[in-house]
Amino acid sequence: MDIRDHLNEEAHYIDGVLADCLAPLQGSVMHAAMSYALLSPGKRVRPALCLAVYEACTRDRERIKPVLAAIEMVHAYSIIQDDLPSMDNSDLRRGKPTTHKVHGEDMALLASDALLTMAFEELSSAQMVGAFGAERCLDAVRTMATLVGAEGLVGGQAMDIITSSDEHVELGTIEYIHKNKTAALIQASVLLGGIFGCASETDMGRLRAFGESFGMAYQIVDDIADASATEAQTGKTAGQDVKNKKATYVTALGLADAREKALQYLASARESALALDSGGDFLTRLVDLLAEKARS
Amino acid sequence: MDIRDHLNEEAHYIDGVLADCLAPLQGSVMHAAMSYALLSPGKRVRPALCLAVYEACTRDRERIKPVLAAIEMVHAYSIIQDDLPSMDNSDLRRGKPTTHKVHGEDMALLASDALLTMAFEELSSAQMVGAFGAERCLDAVRTMATLVGAEGLVGGQAMDIITSSDEHVELGTIEYIHKNKTAALIQASVLLGGIFGCASETDMGRLRAFGESFGMAYQIVDDIADASATEAQTGKTAGQDVKNKKATYVTALGLADAREKALQYLASARESALALDSGGDFLTRLVDLLAEKARS
Repeated sequence: MDIRDHLNEEAHYIDGVLADCLAPLQGSVMHAAMSYALLSPGKRVRPALCLAVYEACTRDRERIKPVLAAIEMVHAYSIIQDDLPSMDNSDLRRGKPTTHKVHGEDMALLASDALLTMAFEELSSAQMVGAFGAERCLDAVRTMATLVGAEGLVGGQAMDIITSSDEHVELGTIEYIHKNKTAALIQASVLLGGIFGCASETDMGRLRAFGESFGMAYQIVDDIADASATEAQTGKTAGQDVKNKKATYVTALGLADAREKALQYLASARESALALDSGGDFLTRLVDLLAEKARS
Repeated sequence: MDIRDHLNEEAHYIDGVLADCLAPLQGSVMHAAMSYALLSPGKRVRPALCLAVYEACTRDRERIKPVLAAIEMVHAYSIIQDDLPSMDNSDLRRGKPTTHKVHGEDMALLASDALLTMAFEELSSAQMVGAFGAERCLDAVRTMATLVGAEGLVGGQAMDIITSSDEHVELGTIEYIHKNKTAALIQASVLLGGIFGCASETDMGRLRAFGESFGMAYQIVDDIADASATEAQTGKTAGQDVKNKKATYVTALGLADAREKALQYLASARESALALDSGGDFLTRLVDLLAEKARS
């Protein structure tokens, strides 16, 4: 199957998982805003990555569902906040009005909190303990918390904000921002796949390396798209990075060199994926797809 | 020792724990805003409750430190967000400018995220697993996440916001708001003390009941203080509830009946504390202290 079709199929599957997870909240005060943010159409790349790594071990998808949901919940939380007036102040996301535009700033913020918290609830649920044991679930909680906290995703966001009015931002700082703001959650996604799959210690190291390189490339390709595309193409308010004076590889190096940088990271991600004892096939094809996008 | 002195001593101890927990973040981009919010002087009632319940089992305080920190981190996260312009828009907290007034709205929000996330990191840390085993740590993660999520603290906040422009709010709704906005985290605090202490199943039920009743009373007494005190006394912008049209027992029932309601909840909390097989002494004295405050 073509990798694009495969991704679409997985996205469809994950959409169902997400809807099921929110169903018990129907009738609760948070349901509308959380659903709006979480069930908005998306590529679901992060949970798909987790699933692919997990399935190197077993095809039993039922058990991993809470993990897929948790990953997308953390992603949705970060997106809601990213778009807030006090952050990037974006009106559009995935071609639709952002959560705070529809549900108000206060409810959008609370929905982001609820999604982040629910992610940890999913990872620690009785169902998960029954399926995988407390040890592995706790490992997942720790991995996720570490990678999305003060020295992970949040740290990256903070550095992004702090440097956004600077005339010149060091390449090392841009790397720090991308590594944490974007690559950390992608890394968490593959690592959680490894924790609940049967990844060996060595493969866990390879997954860590893959997540970082692939995540870096993912952000650079996104920045290239932001700089060169129109709103209709990205579904987001276009040219946001220049408007918000964001430090990206594109603004720092120009389009051609940023593209080169993305391809370097992808080459490195490909190497890590190929080295995996098992489960590297989907990852390699995903690398190739992103490389195609980077070149176009 | 007088309960007030005892509380002050515990607060001092917990302040040290919190400072130690943030120390590894020194030099990181989030350290200043997180420290400002977390280390700001406070009564530390929630971790003190946890500690008291835990110490019914063992005097080994070293092991429980990450849990005390996690509880206060969640409290600090909720306070930062509560004060934001899009929420209560408060300039003062504990007699000091609120976090967003000092660090900006964006960094304040990220600090709240980082504190919430770090709470889960603390509960799942390797140190915790070594001391208590994965099973109990995961139980703590699940308990905390459930009580502060969409159907806990966040749900209470949301209902508070949704009803804040209503002319008449049902008493049942006010109860829902207080139960979730305030009592849930207090309940989590005593439950975590029970999980890591040696509380029996029966005592866990009593702690659950105590946390809810005590938490309800705690909020009502706070509302009484808001309505009757000056800024100098509370260290917060006074009269906020009326200004923000908050539905409280005070605005719904008047001062006298709200006071009566608080005393009812405290009587019920006292009963649960007295029924505990062990560890009820501190809780009972705390109930009596709050009752004194409610009457004054």
